[in-house]
Amino acid sequence: MAEHIREAVEPLVRVAVVGASGYTGGEVIRLLQDHPNAEIVFLSAERNAGQTVGSVHPWLRNCPRMQKRKFQPLSELPDVDVAFSCLPTGALPERLPLLAERAKRVLNLAGDFRLRDAGAVEEHYPRTAAHPPSEQFAYYVPELSPVVPDGRFVSLPGCMAVASLYALYPLLAGDLVEPRVIVDAKTGSTGGGRSGGEPPAERAGNFRVHKLHGHRHAPELAQALAEFTGVGLDLQFSAHSLDVPRGILVTSYSQLRPGVEPIDVKRAYAKAYVGKPFVRVRPAPRAPHDFPMLKAVVGSNIAEVAVSVRGDECVAVAAIDNLVKGAAGQAIQAMNLLCGLGEGTGLPRTAVAP
Amino acid sequence: MAEHIREAVEPLVRVAVVGASGYTGGEVIRLLQDHPNAEIVFLSAERNAGQTVGSVHPWLRNCPRMQKRKFQPLSELPDVDVAFSCLPTGALPERLPLLAERAKRVLNLAGDFRLRDAGAVEEHYPRTAAHPPSEQFAYYVPELSPVVPDGRFVSLPGCMAVASLYALYPLLAGDLVEPRVIVDAKTGSTGGGRSGGEPPAERAGNFRVHKLHGHRHAPELAQALAEFTGVGLDLQFSAHSLDVPRGILVTSYSQLRPGVEPIDVKRAYAKAYVGKPFVRVRPAPRAPHDFPMLKAVVGSNIAEVAVSVRGDECVAVAAIDNLVKGAAGQAIQAMNLLCGLGEGTGLPRTAVAP
Amino acid sequence: MAEHIREAVEPLVRVAVVGASGYTGGEVIRLLQDHPNAEIVFLSAERNAGQTVGSVHPWLRNCPRMQKRKFQPLSELPDVDVAFSCLPTGALPERLPLLAERAKRVLNLAGDFRLRDAGAVEEHYPRTAAHPPSEQFAYYVPELSPVVPDGRFVSLPGCMAVASLYALYPLLAGDLVEPRVIVDAKTGSTGGGRSGGEPPAERAGNFRVHKLHGHRHAPELAQALAEFTGVGLDLQFSAHSLDVPRGILVTSYSQLRPGVEPIDVKRAYAKAYVGKPFVRVRPAPRAPHDFPMLKAVVGSNIAEVAVSVRGDECVAVAAIDNLVKGAAGQAIQAMNLLCGLGEGTGLPRTAVAP
Amino acid sequence: MAEHIREAVEPLVRVAVVGASGYTGGEVIRLLQDHPNAEIVFLSAERNAGQTVGSVHPWLRNCPRMQKRKFQPLSELPDVDVAFSCLPTGALPERLPLLAERAKRVLNLAGDFRLRDAGAVEEHYPRTAAHPPSEQFAYYVPELSPVVPDGRFVSLPGCMAVASLYALYPLLAGDLVEPRVIVDAKTGSTGGGRSGGEPPAERAGNFRVHKLHGHRHAPELAQALAEFTGVGLDLQFSAHSLDVPRGILVTSYSQLRPGVEPIDVKRAYAKAYVGKPFVRVRPAPRAPHDFPMLKAVVGSNIAEVAVSVRGDECVAVAAIDNLVKGAAGQAIQAMNLLCGLGEGTGLPRTAVAP
Repeated sequence: MAEHIREAVEPLVRVAVVGASGYTGGEVIRLLQDHPNAEIVFLSAERNAGQTVGSVHPWLRNCPRMQKRKFQPLSELPDVDVAFSCLPTGALPERLPLLAERAKRVLNLAGDFRLRDAGAVEEHYPRTAAHPPSEQFAYYVPELSPVVPDGRFVSLPGCMAVASLYALYPLLAGDLVEPRVIVDAKTGSTGGGRSGGEPPAERAGNFRVHKLHGHRHAPELAQALAEFTGVGLDLQFSAHSLDVPRGILVTSYSQLRPGVEPIDVKRAYAKAYVGKPFVRVRPAPRAPHDFPMLKAVVGSNIAEVAVSVRGDECVAVAAIDNLVKGAAGQAIQAMNLLCGLGEGTGLPRTAVAP
Repeated sequence: MAEHIREAVEPLVRVAVVGASGYTGGEVIRLLQDHPNAEIVFLSAERNAGQTVGSVHPWLRNCPRMQKRKFQPLSELPDVDVAFSCLPTGALPERLPLLAERAKRVLNLAGDFRLRDAGAVEEHYPRTAAHPPSEQFAYYVPELSPVVPDGRFVSLPGCMAVASLYALYPLLAGDLVEPRVIVDAKTGSTGGGRSGGEPPAERAGNFRVHKLHGHRHAPELAQALAEFTGVGLDLQFSAHSLDVPRGILVTSYSQLRPGVEPIDVKRAYAKAYVGKPFVRVRPAPRAPHDFPMLKAVVGSNIAEVAVSVRGDECVAVAAIDNLVKGAAGQAIQAMNLLCGLGEGTGLPRTAVAP
Repeated sequence: MAEHIREAVEPLVRVAVVGASGYTGGEVIRLLQDHPNAEIVFLSAERNAGQTVGSVHPWLRNCPRMQKRKFQPLSELPDVDVAFSCLPTGALPERLPLLAERAKRVLNLAGDFRLRDAGAVEEHYPRTAAHPPSEQFAYYVPELSPVVPDGRFVSLPGCMAVASLYALYPLLAGDLVEPRVIVDAKTGSTGGGRSGGEPPAERAGNFRVHKLHGHRHAPELAQALAEFTGVGLDLQFSAHSLDVPRGILVTSYSQLRPGVEPIDVKRAYAKAYVGKPFVRVRPAPRAPHDFPMLKAVVGSNIAEVAVSVRGDECVAVAAIDNLVKGAAGQAIQAMNLLCGLGEGTGLPRTAVAP
Repeated sequence: MAEHIREAVEPLVRVAVVGASGYTGGEVIRLLQDHPNAEIVFLSAERNAGQTVGSVHPWLRNCPRMQKRKFQPLSELPDVDVAFSCLPTGALPERLPLLAERAKRVLNLAGDFRLRDAGAVEEHYPRTAAHPPSEQFAYYVPELSPVVPDGRFVSLPGCMAVASLYALYPLLAGDLVEPRVIVDAKTGSTGGGRSGGEPPAERAGNFRVHKLHGHRHAPELAQALAEFTGVGLDLQFSAHSLDVPRGILVTSYSQLRPGVEPIDVKRAYAKAYVGKPFVRVRPAPRAPHDFPMLKAVVGSNIAEVAVSVRGDECVAVAAIDNLVKGAAGQAIQAMNLLCGLGEGTGLPRTAVAP
């Protein structure tokens, strides 16, 4: 039976999706169409202005309410409660003044305003560095941030960063492991955005390194863990490319501190995610299918997490759908919390498989 | 905003899913969990009795309400309003007396009781022929059957048969084409059920013939078209195997009768499916992505249909998700209509892609 | 044991590969590196001039002899025995005078000079129509052309056209079927070339129509069948897109003429391809894996063919690797025959699978 | 031009392939059919005895010499020079006396006799432990073993173990890193053998953990590194499952010893693999496609290796085709060396892609 019935007393959030012709923007549209307390009142796209949702995102063309909605130029943005910025990284900074004028809240799904260290911004987000915002963006991870931000500008985490956060947070928050940590991340092809990728024949049947050092989600992950746990990490972060359209799985490696027992680790995960409906700890996985896997999360806003200890070796794994829990779903979860709605309103908890 | 809110006056349908450890049964569970007017009160499985939904269908293990529900032996079936029989073809006939005793209505998703011709049943369903039912099953296609069946026993169509029906019905109902018709069907791997398939490495990157002649969906298709249109077909039906998990696309070939114009064809499709929320005619497709395709239907209960005419050659295409519109979703749509609920209650209209 | 040992008396063919940075050009390089009687002396590319084979085609970067060879501008073409033109369709006509001056023979793998009817060229190859060649290209299918062409200019068949030819030729040559024929073709993503395709996430898990009417391989197929069999066809040709990198499977439908028996059909296929090492007729297929399939041909120069009759319905199927038998391998087979080498020299007969 | 021409003075090796109906056995057949100095004189299979190569391995059915060869019961094994044992792990020990009687040399491609520590054999290969061999098997990695074994019994390395060996050997042989090493391995579905896997629909689009701790290739890797470098490792080895049919990529993480410079690391790799035709070090990779990847090795006997250093973090990567360099190709390379043939005779160096 339906869980989320709009109560008369709940607000109706007026939403704009900015940069709505990419994969992330399309996913915000897909998920919001069934949201009982939100209404999409505006969709922007630049090259695709004037076209319909159904022509730009063929997989949305059978959606009764959204298929014929048209993308408009950003300049026509009306006053809205929430603007989801799904612009490609680097595009928001110049457009921020306009969004700041018309939107009560701006939720940014791109990388622009996540890093605080100016040198790191300069290195990883040069276009952002050229347009420093007058406003401060809060970095918000619903399950880990100590409070719901009260400011108008919110940045959501990067997809590989947030999967890694879910895997590592309990270990570092509980001071259970040495601060030298390795993350080996594997991501599907939508993680790279809709343009600029390789041809299908070159992705098909391949698996390859994306980056061994210097990925921009590494400083984000270190910054977020420092913020949420107080621990400064010595972090090695590698990213690899999978021949699947959706999904991220990260495998992290760390070393238990002396005296830490497996039961301490198990308790830390249970405690960290109790009451968090979208982070599911896999209990005592043994068989391959017991561990987090893409098939169990793709299409849903669920992050699956597991940890396995042998001697002092600690391996923690997390799996998410990069477009949902790693982007659009996460942002809607944030909107729900920012707007006083139920955290899970409108968000799918079940994968679509096989 | 949410479409389907359970009205106080609407009934709550008590449902059993019989044979719930296969792909079709899992899909009924996935779709019904959010249905506002139905409640699953019983799940049967034989080999998997005692196990949970989440362990048998890993992709359902994060569903809050269903993941820990256990499969029971069929003998424990309680009284229910509707039993969805998702048993493998050949298994229902022996078990029908039990279902008939405990379920007000039986919806059969397998092939057993679709064909009426005894010789055809003998050829294609020998196990069924050995257990002739004392009851008559109505063959029910929500969009094409002239009335909602009022009997207790209902058979849903086969996945490739129903995709072909959607493609061909307007042509034959309108007497627009010669009755010599070719159907070239392509289906994903879940169409073959959960057991007995080939290893993943042998499916990967392959495309192959499944059957050129003698597929059991051919007599079903001919029988259904005769029933719904009065036309007896000379039908060539071939099936091919795709390396995708879900989805069927059929391409059908026929010859326009003398004097039939393209506009007649176009009108026939528009008329046939007006007011049918789950069959969508693609208007005037030109570019490849305009035509029916798997990406636009997978995960949803939508059938996409298109027709293209050149000279007297008529090509009609349909695409469905074999597990939703070709099986579980179709059956829930039937349940909705049989039980006086809104036809689309609880059924997804949007694909999950890319 | 090795089959093809270069005899001292055999010639060494000096080869240029023109337009060598596309998939077809890369495949010519891959196959020719082990050819005992041919030597690649020149590789051209425009945007990639100056780069190495291994950087442009990463899958060739471990080939000892070719990986460090550089692409040069076409203007530097030296005198060669054979130039394989792998330029994209439309690019050769302007460059033909240069090739004609420097190459003893030009083998064209693109679509430019296949069609003879001026109207059809205008419709399907407008860029070609703007540069009519002063030279006549022979259209050459090694197994079907009655003689090896003695002219300098040879066009190889299109990939879907040639697969269809192998399927249909025995039926039409033997006058066994009515001349109304339907071809339903399915092709992998390399068939569309290296640029301009869709992103991997949009191909993944999809199956879709490419073109139902008006594909340019249709007039080519009709012309070739007329040339080789004398039969003028009423042809319906549709093309579909598979989510696999390589391979074409075509399913053709026709109606036996009155009095034609299955044994006549069987004999016609056996006779048509006796002594043709690269066209293999599958004998009496029953189970799915007995039929032509991509896994049995991908990586090889083999075309698999089968035919199945029921009543007067005749279904003929063929499968090829579009880059080998549909392009590069076919062209090398042609070169072998044109240059007096053994037909199969240097050509793989075994698929690379699973 | 052809590289490997059989010299009159070279021997002709008479070969048996035992357990030839699995993927590894099929791959030995595929590769040996073109080997100029080896002749397959016997193929065994148990359940498939009496069937042909082409019916059991459809992808080999167009191979002129091998397609009609029949599998025989092992009891009919004649005297041969080399028996490739491709039996599933656990099956060889009981059959070893027969092989020892009829084959001058036994090359074992399964896991049975790789480990020397009795406790580890007991834990990981219980069926092997129950049949201890009277003969000692040499563990042989062509590029790393100090000498070609002169005994009759040779074990080839496991596929994930050998990929990891190629990645790590130069670091440990040169004493460049601390002995705490992490290996994160990813493998395609043929790595699990032909039977017992999951259905294609459950592999499709998935990525998942196979094992985080306790994989049997871990003690093999530690033993081999100890044998080849003298270094005892503290090793964390995890394996993951890719939705591709072929290929392994391993990413290893270690920490440089104090004072070790990037140039030392670079030199160690260059030195370790100089003169090794099948291990290719990728020089100075920067862009994603510069690193080892499946597409560059699948179908070939090449192992690609790269290393990347940042601060004291050292990441080494290797990619192989698990069926070629990880199994059949490696074994043929071993046969060549054991029999005094050229190391690369009959072995492909070029991938088959895209």
